Amino acid sequence: MTAEIVPLQRNKPTLDPMLSLTATAMNSVNTVILDRMQSEIPLIPALAGHLISGGGKRLRPMLTLAGAELVGYQGSRHHKLAAAVEFIHTATLLHDDVVDGSDLRRGKAAANIIFGNPATVLVGDFLFSRAFELMVEDGSLKVLKILSSASAIIAEGEVDQLTAQRQIETSEERYLSIIGAKTAALFAAASRISAVVAECSDAQEEALDAYGRNLGIAFQLVDDALDYSSDAAAMGKDRGDDFREGKMTLPVILAYARGNEEERGFWKAAIGGHRTSEADLAYAITLMERHDAVEATRQRARHFAERAIDALSIFPDGKARMALSEAAMFAVSRGY
Amino acid sequence: MTAEIVPLQRNKPTLDPMLSLTATAMNSVNTVILDRMQSEIPLIPALAGHLISGGGKRLRPMLTLAGAELVGYQGSRHHKLAAAVEFIHTATLLHDDVVDGSDLRRGKAAANIIFGNPATVLVGDFLFSRAFELMVEDGSLKVLKILSSASAIIAEGEVDQLTAQRQIETSEERYLSIIGAKTAALFAAASRISAVVAECSDAQEEALDAYGRNLGIAFQLVDDALDYSSDAAAMGKDRGDDFREGKMTLPVILAYARGNEEERGFWKAAIGGHRTSEADLAYAITLMERHDAVEATRQRARHFAERAIDALSIFPDGKARMALSEAAMFAVSRGY
Repeated sequence: MTAEIVPLQRNKPTLDPMLSLTATAMNSVNTVILDRMQSEIPLIPALAGHLISGGGKRLRPMLTLAGAELVGYQGSRHHKLAAAVEFIHTATLLHDDVVDGSDLRRGKAAANIIFGNPATVLVGDFLFSRAFELMVEDGSLKVLKILSSASAIIAEGEVDQLTAQRQIETSEERYLSIIGAKTAALFAAASRISAVVAECSDAQEEALDAYGRNLGIAFQLVDDALDYSSDAAAMGKDRGDDFREGKMTLPVILAYARGNEEERGFWKAAIGGHRTSEADLAYAITLMERHDAVEATRQRARHFAERAIDALSIFPDGKARMALSEAAMFAVSRGY
Repeated sequence: MTAEIVPLQRNKPTLDPMLSLTATAMNSVNTVILDRMQSEIPLIPALAGHLISGGGKRLRPMLTLAGAELVGYQGSRHHKLAAAVEFIHTATLLHDDVVDGSDLRRGKAAANIIFGNPATVLVGDFLFSRAFELMVEDGSLKVLKILSSASAIIAEGEVDQLTAQRQIETSEERYLSIIGAKTAALFAAASRISAVVAECSDAQEEALDAYGRNLGIAFQLVDDALDYSSDAAAMGKDRGDDFREGKMTLPVILAYARGNEEERGFWKAAIGGHRTSEADLAYAITLMERHDAVEATRQRARHFAERAIDALSIFPDGKARMALSEAAMFAVSRGY
């Protein structure tokens, strides 16, 4: 199949090469996930399953699996570890839904809407603990260190984002620091651990970390751009969620930085929570278009995607490297 | 000091022997706690510090320290691990406050009231991750297994408790299973890991686990009894919290089981959330007194405290064993 992939610049990149590269291993990962989200307390698999079976792309565990292909790993330890990565991610999504008061997640009612905030918080805790149990079973202290550190950094990033909420003066640097923590840290860790189980060189570990980290930043930038350009149906969330919540993302930061005094006044009011109607959102999008804020955000994403791709240059050419590269281009082409 | 302790049955037991046994080591633990709750995100130490510096007894890390004294451990690994235990406990308290919608914790405004639910959830996640980072630094996979398993069991117990909420038919067996998970699992793990770092025999590990587990059950039983007998000032929480939340605890289970039809009707309405006034609470306490439900709960607690003490019989007599034994009697004498 890979031989048929056309050059990235000409055709729209897809996730298909990654999906076919990792399909067999992902079946094993899904078996671990389904097995280990069970509990004698019926509410736990019901709530966890709502999200876990809810059509997520399994992008983060896919990075672990694709990384293992890239470095020619022959064992199966990465199945449990990829499941642990997905559990950590699911736990953070459940807690995010409570934190954001989300109504929709992946196009369905968010877990907190169906099961309530208390159960959603607690099942997140359960999955997080299960993730560590899986890692302990694997037995690598190095993997445990990478993923426990990533987990602490994710939480720090989320708190930092909360602190920046409704703060119109948030800088691009601060924003990059936030998404580097809340999103890219887990992408980096998921990629890196494939090199750890395969006992690769430090340079290869670092390269996979850099790939994942830059991909994670690109991915989040595009997500944040889509909140001002997609419709709810396409992304499984409501357009304008970030806007209404006063979340400081790059499109807002750039529109504000490039705006005149009158426009800045609007942004202050909007991010401050005083102008959040549909008409206000429409005006916000008009201002972003005037200053190319969404397109500039996409350009920034492309920069990080290219860094991700170039980080892979120390690995031999082949199916896995092409799939990982195309996945990075796919990340920045979403919603186009 | 220990030589001066009078026999348990004659005088009111205190926590003093435990406190003096562990005072020096606890200073080291507190240093680790203060150091490792830091973050570049100022909201994190502010929120964590509100609870951590808020006058908790540090009972769970104290078990690790006292256990180490009991088995004659000479190293210092248990300091970091005791801090990890306290972080796990603090994380669950923060999440509990969100789950219960608590107003008070340890006599102060609960973190969620001051800092809001979102930050409280996320700082809980941060402390939980930090706990695992501390364990990874210690490097014992056995300790990691014990505490990651305990963490999953705690979350299961909390979800189970949520499921039992407002269910008047909850049995004593189910209740014991819930508190065995949500409370006693961490007491057991905190005690057990002292034997692990000291490389004790399996029998000694099991004995410390049994001590902690039985103590944890006794402790929770008395906490639940106090919700129908203490005043807010003494316990740092509002009397009747459990009653208003429709939480099924043993005093309610026994009053319901021993009550006549009319009384059962009241309990159904009260636990169902339809009779939660101060007058209803007063009537609930009258019914409990009529059936000795609070006193019977205390008797149950005494049973578990005695099992905790007897579990220590394989260890030599001495200051540490006496301190641990008196702590168990103290746990059941609180509020008397």
